[in-house]
Amino acid sequence: MRVFGIDCGTEVTGFGVVESSETAREPLLVAKAMGAIRLARSRPLTERLEQIFRELTDELERWRPDAVAIEEVFYSVNAKSALKLGQVRGVALLAAARQGLPVAEYAPLKIKSSVVGYGMAQKEQVQFMVARLLRLEEVPQPADAADALAIAICHIHTAQTRMLQEVK
Amino acid sequence: MRVFGIDCGTEVTGFGVVESSETAREPLLVAKAMGAIRLARSRPLTERLEQIFRELTDELERWRPDAVAIEEVFYSVNAKSALKLGQVRGVALLAAARQGLPVAEYAPLKIKSSVVGYGMAQKEQVQFMVARLLRLEEVPQPADAADALAIAICHIHTAQTRMLQEVK
Repeated sequence: MRVFGIDCGTEVTGFGVVESSETAREPLLVAKAMGAIRLARSRPLTERLEQIFRELTDELERWRPDAVAIEEVFYSVNAKSALKLGQVRGVALLAAARQGLPVAEYAPLKIKSSVVGYGMAQKEQVQFMVARLLRLEEVPQPADAADALAIAICHIHTAQTRMLQEVK
Repeated sequence: MRVFGIDCGTEVTGFGVVESSETAREPLLVAKAMGAIRLARSRPLTERLEQIFRELTDELERWRPDAVAIEEVFYSVNAKSALKLGQVRGVALLAAARQGLPVAEYAPLKIKSSVVGYGMAQKEQVQFMVARLLRLEEVPQPADAADALAIAICHIHTAQTRMLQEVK
């Protein structure tokens, strides 16, 4: 199973592609790709949205994942930030939909708990565990890419739990 | 000049196409089209976003406007609503950008003031004036379409003022 994780942000949107191999005894997770789309603040909003859509579409076409995973949004942010983030998120979701891909959403608590085993984990702990689970020598940079990988790992873990439950 | 106005909403997104004829002594405004895209709440978010994008793209290709006009968003709404509205707005802006169209944003106060001559006008007054300026027998329905026409009229009025200033 190959999952494309997206961590939406107004300035930087991270992405990460994680594959789980089912052949190994213990499911093996491999990072196939990671990166970040940086938006120039100076450019008009429409151009920035088009850039996000184009670059995400390119990556989705390149990596052909089975599913897309994205973080549910905290509502602790203010309305102005939420609107801006919503605009980016809408375009990211559209890119996935246009490729006919299923999209799963996960709450931050669920992602942390799935990666670290503890929902209140610090950001650094999550990034450390992402590197460890994917056997990377360093914590993926930028942090947005590491967060996107965490979201993808969460989806794989959740799907595996679901399968185990179905098998029972 | 032909302007495509969009009034974004989480459930209903209105649109209206207004053309100004420059040949008449007094600039004549004509409503070429109006309508509303209704999103079924029961369908997944990704499908709803794809529907908005597809239908707006179809209308933009059909009416080939010179510009798109959209309302700036009130920040009086809460963060949850702002995020949802942002998702729709991001996709609407992307549809315009993908057609290579310039997009202008107008504050609600500016739209009311441009259509009614009074920034604190009631919604009904705006709709009444939209019908009058476009010589329609009735107030356009649904209200979202009337609002979209108001945004388009605001853009035409603003562009005309700008031209008059440049001529001076």
